[in-house]
Amino acid sequence: MTRIWNFSAGPAALPESVLQTTQAELLDWHGVGASIMEVSHRGKYFQEVIAAAEADLRELLAIPANYKVLFLQGGATLQFSAIPLNLLCGRSADYVVTGAWSKKAFQEAGRIAPVRLAVSTESADQPADGFIRLPRFDALSLDPAAAYLHLCTNETIHGVEIHDDASLPQNVPIVADMSSHLLSRPVDIRRYGLIYAGAQKNVGPSGLTLVIVRQDLLGKTAVVPRLLDYQAQVDNDSMLNTPTTFSIYVAGLVFQWLKKTGGLARMAEINREKAALLYAAIDDSNGFYKNPVEANCRSRMNTPFNLPTPTLEAEFVRASETAGFMGLKGHKSVGGIRASLYNAMPVEGVEALVGFMRAFATGRG
Amino acid sequence: MTRIWNFSAGPAALPESVLQTTQAELLDWHGVGASIMEVSHRGKYFQEVIAAAEADLRELLAIPANYKVLFLQGGATLQFSAIPLNLLCGRSADYVVTGAWSKKAFQEAGRIAPVRLAVSTESADQPADGFIRLPRFDALSLDPAAAYLHLCTNETIHGVEIHDDASLPQNVPIVADMSSHLLSRPVDIRRYGLIYAGAQKNVGPSGLTLVIVRQDLLGKTAVVPRLLDYQAQVDNDSMLNTPTTFSIYVAGLVFQWLKKTGGLARMAEINREKAALLYAAIDDSNGFYKNPVEANCRSRMNTPFNLPTPTLEAEFVRASETAGFMGLKGHKSVGGIRASLYNAMPVEGVEALVGFMRAFATGRG
Repeated sequence: MTRIWNFSAGPAALPESVLQTTQAELLDWHGVGASIMEVSHRGKYFQEVIAAAEADLRELLAIPANYKVLFLQGGATLQFSAIPLNLLCGRSADYVVTGAWSKKAFQEAGRIAPVRLAVSTESADQPADGFIRLPRFDALSLDPAAAYLHLCTNETIHGVEIHDDASLPQNVPIVADMSSHLLSRPVDIRRYGLIYAGAQKNVGPSGLTLVIVRQDLLGKTAVVPRLLDYQAQVDNDSMLNTPTTFSIYVAGLVFQWLKKTGGLARMAEINREKAALLYAAIDDSNGFYKNPVEANCRSRMNTPFNLPTPTLEAEFVRASETAGFMGLKGHKSVGGIRASLYNAMPVEGVEALVGFMRAFATGRG
Repeated sequence: MTRIWNFSAGPAALPESVLQTTQAELLDWHGVGASIMEVSHRGKYFQEVIAAAEADLRELLAIPANYKVLFLQGGATLQFSAIPLNLLCGRSADYVVTGAWSKKAFQEAGRIAPVRLAVSTESADQPADGFIRLPRFDALSLDPAAAYLHLCTNETIHGVEIHDDASLPQNVPIVADMSSHLLSRPVDIRRYGLIYAGAQKNVGPSGLTLVIVRQDLLGKTAVVPRLLDYQAQVDNDSMLNTPTTFSIYVAGLVFQWLKKTGGLARMAEINREKAALLYAAIDDSNGFYKNPVEANCRSRMNTPFNLPTPTLEAEFVRASETAGFMGLKGHKSVGGIRASLYNAMPVEGVEALVGFMRAFATGRG
């Protein structure tokens, strides 16, 4: 068996040791004679799994006691609806649009109530630019009566990331879609009212969605559909119905792996090193590779880049697959190339990619 | 490794050969160098998996071409909301309540619109009876203008099952929660407008929900949240966002296993044999074991039963665990014992259980 260097944007590579444990335990979890997939979500075995997963996640992110952790389903997309349904309570909310995902969140919320676009960084008059920058948060005109301010702190498609929690406004609760960089670095949870993330990047298999929410924001309204009611899920410890047990189990193994690796501060160092390697390879290519995002908000998780022509980009994807890489084709909406450098991608994988990129450019530049 | 006899109601036992294949392929699916959990849902590898899963499911259930198959998230509970949101279009619907799950479906729909309780078989004046029978469908007074008639065709908690599709009314589309018996026998799909099922009984791991829906019922309304919009999911081949890829993969292996076993007609024979063994052990116990459900609707999937006292029931559960059985404790809402005999439980497992029951009753009766 040869494992490939997998740069997929999500579902994405998982730590190999996590997969090995999953494999070893697959038919017989901890000697109980059944797979963890096969046991009751309310029984003692799975209760042990989900309790450990929550405790480890709380430790990794230093989640304060007044925040609840929910293990839900439906991806970030279902949260685009659940958030306004739970938090608006007749008010408006401000949305910052910095890429495709925050735009979708804004549009979906608008189907529920007339929320407000605080700012969009899309270069509508220069569509080739697309989303390449952050707004100046200190210059934003925000509604002080808004129920919340919504952000996507890492735009998976456009590769735009907010690196500094401290730069964000603090006058209303911040709701953040952290799907593609949660657990890639420490986060000051207290700066946020609600954090949500689809699991399939740094957390675990797809199908699981994490929600971390400040308790005082909940319980002010009865939500329909009831499965989307955060307070009802809190009251039922994420078990209003059967949760996605296997994904929670694998996520729990990922959390253990992160603790063994040295926690999120160590992970952030590794991720900075990986991103520095890749952006250097792009910036030092004499214009053969180009990433348009402004330097202060280049994502350490998702790096989209272009080659001189679409033909060369297609050739790059083909050659990379032959050379043992996976998942480098850019998102269909923007084209080009994208390399996602989630936690499970080791430095060696990025070194291999950078070596491949330099070899590919040689003679073609 | 010793595998236990697992009678859990769900998440439930999976076929051992399915788990073995999953285990063998866990780090390297079909030699591609990655787990199927780690690859893009839109890439060729997972597209192959989901296309094969749908084709095999269509073959097993003989699903006509004018029905769509959706692979969704959120369990049957989220469908309790999605169904009225998609199908009511300003009309009412009739709900038949035959147990805890159809009652929940009725209550949840009532939060969206004033749907109508066509009949409940709950013995309100004799609460000890609980749900033990089906209504006479030919004597039901139904609303001819209803958008649909909702049924739960197998009540997992109360062990009440509709065995005969042909006995159902045909004047409005029937919407059926088949969570706990889908794939246990052939179904005449054309008698239903919409069938839905949480996967964690006969289909695969929890987190996946199947919806099989007649196409002409859709597209009449725009649904919020959009993730619950069946037409939008149809238009996107169940990929409005990232689906629960691993659960779909395992479900696909279960479908292949069912085909190898001889399809649903053969599965129904085996399930009849298993249920006959268990009900005989109950009925031949001189009243030591009691199942109250009327003979024509005793579930072949879930058999709740009682012993003379709660003390004996607790002793039975403890002794069964020592003897190598799992999951026999009854649902918390009704107590007692419950044995679930899903497809993955072989006849030998039921024979072992029946032997244990006879030995346990001896001297205690």
